[in-house]
Amino acid sequence: MANIYDLAYDLEKGLRNSDEFQDLKQAYEKVMNDPQTKKMFDDFRDTQLNLQQKQMQGQEITEEEVNKAKQVVELVQQQEDIAKLMEEEQRLNTLISDVSKIITKPLEELYGEEEQ
Amino acid sequence: MANIYDLAYDLEKGLRNSDEFQDLKQAYEKVMNDPQTKKMFDDFRDTQLNLQQKQMQGQEITEEEVNKAKQVVELVQQQEDIAKLMEEEQRLNTLISDVSKIITKPLEELYGEEEQ
Ligand SMILES: [Ca+2]
Ligand SMILES: [Ca+2]
Repeated sequence: MANIYDLAYDLEKGLRNSDEFQDLKQAYEKVMNDPQTKKMFDDFRDTQLNLQQKQMQGQEITEEEVNKAKQVVELVQQQEDIAKLMEEEQRLNTLISDVSKIITKPLEELYGEEEQ
Repeated sequence: MANIYDLAYDLEKGLRNSDEFQDLKQAYEKVMNDPQTKKMFDDFRDTQLNLQQKQMQGQEITEEEVNKAKQVVELVQQQEDIAKLMEEEQRLNTLISDVSKIITKPLEELYGEEEQ
């Protein structure tokens, strides 16, 4: 029976070599290597993080902030390299989320079966 | 190059067969099979969840609630089967957290290297 850490490293290597990760890496580096695109992307992430933090802390989000956030999203979606990066991030997130669901299945089964 | 899902299922099988998971399962079933112990454990979990939700929603937690929570923790820690279950949960959480750090390393490296 293989060691858990060996199995985890095999999976890590698989993820690192996957098309999903390699495409994300390429898209990320393209955005990061263009200062103007990078700035646009950083502004977008800052706006997102700010709103998320406010939400988590139960702070009120003003209509002005919502509108500003919408404008920033529209702006970045029109920049093709950023749109591509966001698409690749979404793709990898889906893969990681699937993997996470698979490996936590034993726990879910254990804690789930007593609830019924 | 192995498929990501195959690698994830190998890891899932490894976790399911691990001493860590099997010991947790045994400890959990022992608690669940004794109605009095189960009730004590359920009360403890409810108290914890309540406090966590209040914290996340930024609600104030009264001194009375903190004291009540402390009492519930002290009580469950004295029940040997629950103490054992909590120990096994901690052990499996550490393993899952290690695994999660390993498999998200490529992402951490990608997003980390540009920050420096
Ligand atoms: Ca372009
Ligand atoms: Ca006993």
